[in-house]
Amino acid sequence: MPRRLEKIEYKPISVRELFLEMKNLSELMIDLAYSAALFNDRELAEDVLELETRVDTLSYLLEMTIMIAARDAEDAEALTGVSTVASAADKISDAAADIAAIITQGIGIHPLITAVFEKVEERLTRTKVQGNSVLAGKNLDELDLAARMGVDIIAICRDREWIINPKEVEHLRSGDILIARGAPLGVKDLKELAEGKKQRLED
Amino acid sequence: MPRRLEKIEYKPISVRELFLEMKNLSELMIDLAYSAALFNDRELAEDVLELETRVDTLSYLLEMTIMIAARDAEDAEALTGVSTVASAADKISDAAADIAAIITQGIGIHPLITAVFEKVEERLTRTKVQGNSVLAGKNLDELDLAARMGVDIIAICRDREWIINPKEVEHLRSGDILIARGAPLGVKDLKELAEGKKQRLED
Repeated sequence: MPRRLEKIEYKPISVRELFLEMKNLSELMIDLAYSAALFNDRELAEDVLELETRVDTLSYLLEMTIMIAARDAEDAEALTGVSTVASAADKISDAAADIAAIITQGIGIHPLITAVFEKVEERLTRTKVQGNSVLAGKNLDELDLAARMGVDIIAICRDREWIINPKEVEHLRSGDILIARGAPLGVKDLKELAEGKKQRLED
Repeated sequence: MPRRLEKIEYKPISVRELFLEMKNLSELMIDLAYSAALFNDRELAEDVLELETRVDTLSYLLEMTIMIAARDAEDAEALTGVSTVASAADKISDAAADIAAIITQGIGIHPLITAVFEKVEERLTRTKVQGNSVLAGKNLDELDLAARMGVDIIAICRDREWIINPKEVEHLRSGDILIARGAPLGVKDLKELAEGKKQRLED
């Protein structure tokens, strides 16, 4: 698949931060790709492809940072493992992008794919917070979605930036795209709350 | 990494079965590889490498089965997506094997790797059912480990064969290697029960 690489500029950033983001993104991408295939959801699939270019960028930055960090043979040896795990995360994200491309290229989801993916008990959803949603302006801590409806927000896409595993203090905003995981009923409720179709948070 | 491929013989088996096993195995392998890295666990890492050869075999069998199943251009087109998802599962399993090889090759687990993997809230364990264990001879339904201790057995390795997502009717046997996922406390309990150090199943 042609890669639309972002322009990469070296910025000092910790190996740990880069590495953690790569691992989290690659896992999220697999979940998103499976969901995209299961629901034949083009937007989700496009998110996966966008995230793939992000992981490619992170991968370059990480390799650069590791090279600069390694001052001698001992450092280099110690960092080899990190580099291997990072490239594994890159492979995983490539695999997710391959699956997503089936949807964006309109190859069509064979019933076998649906049959295999629908064994997933938990469901993922992608929903956008509308201006009239009760979610807008609240932080995740006060919403307490896990206890209230068995749903976890695993990522937020805001102004084309991705926030993976958002913290409790994160405030949701109108226009946020939420990726949430949870029991089918909770996921359905969250969607209705985000879209402003339901205005009351139940206890 | 050198691949020790099993001798592959074409046996008629459904595309669906092959495909489902590939997907399940690739996901299990990622979990196992992360755990192997987190706990620097050589046995788990070796399991991952063994499973990788299994996925390679499944991948060949699946491609053969798909070729035989496709009678015309329409079939072929419909099956392209299945083939793509299967090769994505293969890539994911390769990535897991790369991570596992860090442990088996003694490259050493950099503290950064541990830091990144230990964010995983749930824990995996690998334990062997001893002859004097209360688990031996019982089926998963009567053990009801999920309700009793918050633990799921996600795979059993028996006589070098892997049973992925074992069914409720499956009887555990002495010598079985269990891969279980769950809360840290439950996982610890299961290990003690399997090793015969604890003889009573609590309610």
